[in-house]
Amino acid sequence: MGRLDDAIRSYSEALDLAPDSAHNWSNLGLAQHESGQYSDAEHSLRTALSLDPGLAMAHHNLAWLLQRQHRVDEAIASYRSAARHMPGSAQSHYNLGTLLEQKDNVDEARSHYRAALDASPTFIPAHRALADLALRTVPLWHVPMMNDVARNRAYQNALNRAVRPGSVVFEIGTGSGLLAMMAARYGAETVVTCEADQIVAQAATEVIRSNGYSATVQVVPKHSQEMVVGEHLPRSPDVFVSEIFSSELLGEHVLSSIEDAKRRLLSPQTQVIPQSANIMIALVGGDALCDNLFVADVCEFDLRAFNAIVPKRQPLVREDLPVQLLSDPLAAFSFDFQSQASWPGETKIFDIPVTGDGKCVGILQWIRLQLDDEVAFENAPTSRAGSSSWTRSIYLFPEPTSLYRRDVVRVLAAHNRNCPWFIVEDLTRLSDQ
Amino acid sequence: MGRLDDAIRSYSEALDLAPDSAHNWSNLGLAQHESGQYSDAEHSLRTALSLDPGLAMAHHNLAWLLQRQHRVDEAIASYRSAARHMPGSAQSHYNLGTLLEQKDNVDEARSHYRAALDASPTFIPAHRALADLALRTVPLWHVPMMNDVARNRAYQNALNRAVRPGSVVFEIGTGSGLLAMMAARYGAETVVTCEADQIVAQAATEVIRSNGYSATVQVVPKHSQEMVVGEHLPRSPDVFVSEIFSSELLGEHVLSSIEDAKRRLLSPQTQVIPQSANIMIALVGGDALCDNLFVADVCEFDLRAFNAIVPKRQPLVREDLPVQLLSDPLAAFSFDFQSQASWPGETKIFDIPVTGDGKCVGILQWIRLQLDDEVAFENAPTSRAGSSSWTRSIYLFPEPTSLYRRDVVRVLAAHNRNCPWFIVEDLTRLSDQ
Repeated sequence: MGRLDDAIRSYSEALDLAPDSAHNWSNLGLAQHESGQYSDAEHSLRTALSLDPGLAMAHHNLAWLLQRQHRVDEAIASYRSAARHMPGSAQSHYNLGTLLEQKDNVDEARSHYRAALDASPTFIPAHRALADLALRTVPLWHVPMMNDVARNRAYQNALNRAVRPGSVVFEIGTGSGLLAMMAARYGAETVVTCEADQIVAQAATEVIRSNGYSATVQVVPKHSQEMVVGEHLPRSPDVFVSEIFSSELLGEHVLSSIEDAKRRLLSPQTQVIPQSANIMIALVGGDALCDNLFVADVCEFDLRAFNAIVPKRQPLVREDLPVQLLSDPLAAFSFDFQSQASWPGETKIFDIPVTGDGKCVGILQWIRLQLDDEVAFENAPTSRAGSSSWTRSIYLFPEPTSLYRRDVVRVLAAHNRNCPWFIVEDLTRLSDQ
Repeated sequence: MGRLDDAIRSYSEALDLAPDSAHNWSNLGLAQHESGQYSDAEHSLRTALSLDPGLAMAHHNLAWLLQRQHRVDEAIASYRSAARHMPGSAQSHYNLGTLLEQKDNVDEARSHYRAALDASPTFIPAHRALADLALRTVPLWHVPMMNDVARNRAYQNALNRAVRPGSVVFEIGTGSGLLAMMAARYGAETVVTCEADQIVAQAATEVIRSNGYSATVQVVPKHSQEMVVGEHLPRSPDVFVSEIFSSELLGEHVLSSIEDAKRRLLSPQTQVIPQSANIMIALVGGDALCDNLFVADVCEFDLRAFNAIVPKRQPLVREDLPVQLLSDPLAAFSFDFQSQASWPGETKIFDIPVTGDGKCVGILQWIRLQLDDEVAFENAPTSRAGSSSWTRSIYLFPEPTSLYRRDVVRVLAAHNRNCPWFIVEDLTRLSDQ
């Protein structure tokens, strides 16, 4: 503290001699900020800027002072001034980017992170922020999904059957443009595909151009709810295709997007791909899953009390672990996209018969898409484990529980249109154990 | 809009007849809010509350209005009033929890999510918020780490050698209490272990109690920087142990925590476990990694343009994928915790000789801990793949690149004490290709 007081005193003395020195006011403001005198600091920095409106360091220091006080909009304005007067300041661009991200202004945040790296190529926080932003645009499952042969073949077969020469095809969620190009290949006259993420839309446009489909496939960089027939679509489409389903099926506002499309954009004759979808569940266990999700005896200590604080729902990221299904798969929720127009939230109770003996960790959840009358596709744990891009989720029991054939587990299942949830209500021992 | 206008008109007319009806003012305020008349809405809701300060619905609706306007502190106060007057409102508790989380008040947020579930056991958003909070407290790697036999054995061996009867042992990061109990088992007189997360500290205290070590092991629910010798520690410890290393080694402010402990709490005689650590890298490739990280030709379309937007750093979550190392492992950064007192940021350049032919996806990063002179532990990709709790990271090349033995890759490596980063600068073809 002593050093800061000394600094404040010496800058003040310097200002007695040269009261018009913007630099001295700026330095005084910084020292006042560091010693916690926020309002004095703000006054000093604003005085500096009134004397020299182009003093970039004072803009930056004022912005940092405002940021510390959670005055986000004012801080953004000051960082903008700092970056304008001092474009080589990686720190100004980076701090501005983080605040813009807080305000969900992702595109501008990205460009300031890039400006930070232009100014300083080894500025690690900007590298990291760009990677984190890219991870929101292209999550870890995205590339494996594009390389998922079974998924691609299923959509290809369904589109091959549905699309006829002259068809108009509408897609929500362009991604790489793969499904849209398939529709074009099978003879569609016009394919309109909308993509809410600007960065993905740009990449898809480039992919489509480089494959020679720009004349047929049009990428509209908008959310589906902004699409209008007559403006973006020539007419109601013959085929509607979408693959915006999350691992829980219901993420990304999929139900409200499809409801809106059916109400405003599709006709009763439009073929919807997938025609229906299910949220699937089964009781699941096995030693490998137990060790991945729960602790018991470790080095002759009993760590079980720690199990009380593990998350009650977890993505099963370790696709290599063997899983043991302890019940038949069950379609907990069904969504008929072809025939129905809306899908309200639901709550159900299931009595699930146990089909084998084993240590159960909880309820496994995956999804199933029925693309048309002939092709279905699911990331069931028994089929193609390790090769699907959708992650399965586990809803955990409080502790691993030994189940035996003919026991019955009562499960409360609910979804609120955005997320499913599963809770074990009761266990009835009908086995001989 | 017409319906809202009608509602506003009819509530206004009702208020002409009964101007003291708090309910009518509240309903009018809600309708005004929904039609976008924010300041009229606020006036109506505040009038309702001045007439009936206990009208919970008006508190809730005012809170929601304030939340929509990003007036977070005011919204929190109003939700608190709503929850107090209407404890059965799951939505009030839940909304309050989300705002408290925004303000990093995690403990109170958690208790309001729980109150939401007490009020409504199937209120899915609260289940989900609690699981997400728990995931921050106990990340996916935590349970596998506790069950990581090789890690546990390494720490057990090192503690067995270091701890003597009468030792004072200090640990940063209690976790489940496992390492602290090991130290107690090997004869420590006092083990003091600090844990910044309150929920983890409580669980560890229960684990330690149930194993009968409460007399020896004391969990202090504080950040290490709040610990004081004479208050929390009887004296400078004989042994200092910590396992707060992230997958990149440097997360969780590990360097500043150890620097602070060495400056204030340890003595030159204190044995530090681990005595040193490395951030390890190697060039990495293989077909499975290529398909997981990049797209190429899919269904006879060329999707390569999409590779421009994939994240430049990714955790390698698929531990089952075979990886091919294309260089010898390299200790990019070393941290001598026993002998040094501080570790500033570093920037280095490495010329890495390619040791085999293959398609390279980028730079793989893992960590290595040297616990004492005898025991080391690392999550190298060649050893124990699939069984470590630390995730390896990949810093991606722009595209998969064919490398051949004797090529040289120039890598820029930097860390800023919180995060490492690696960038390929140049490729020199010394192979015959």
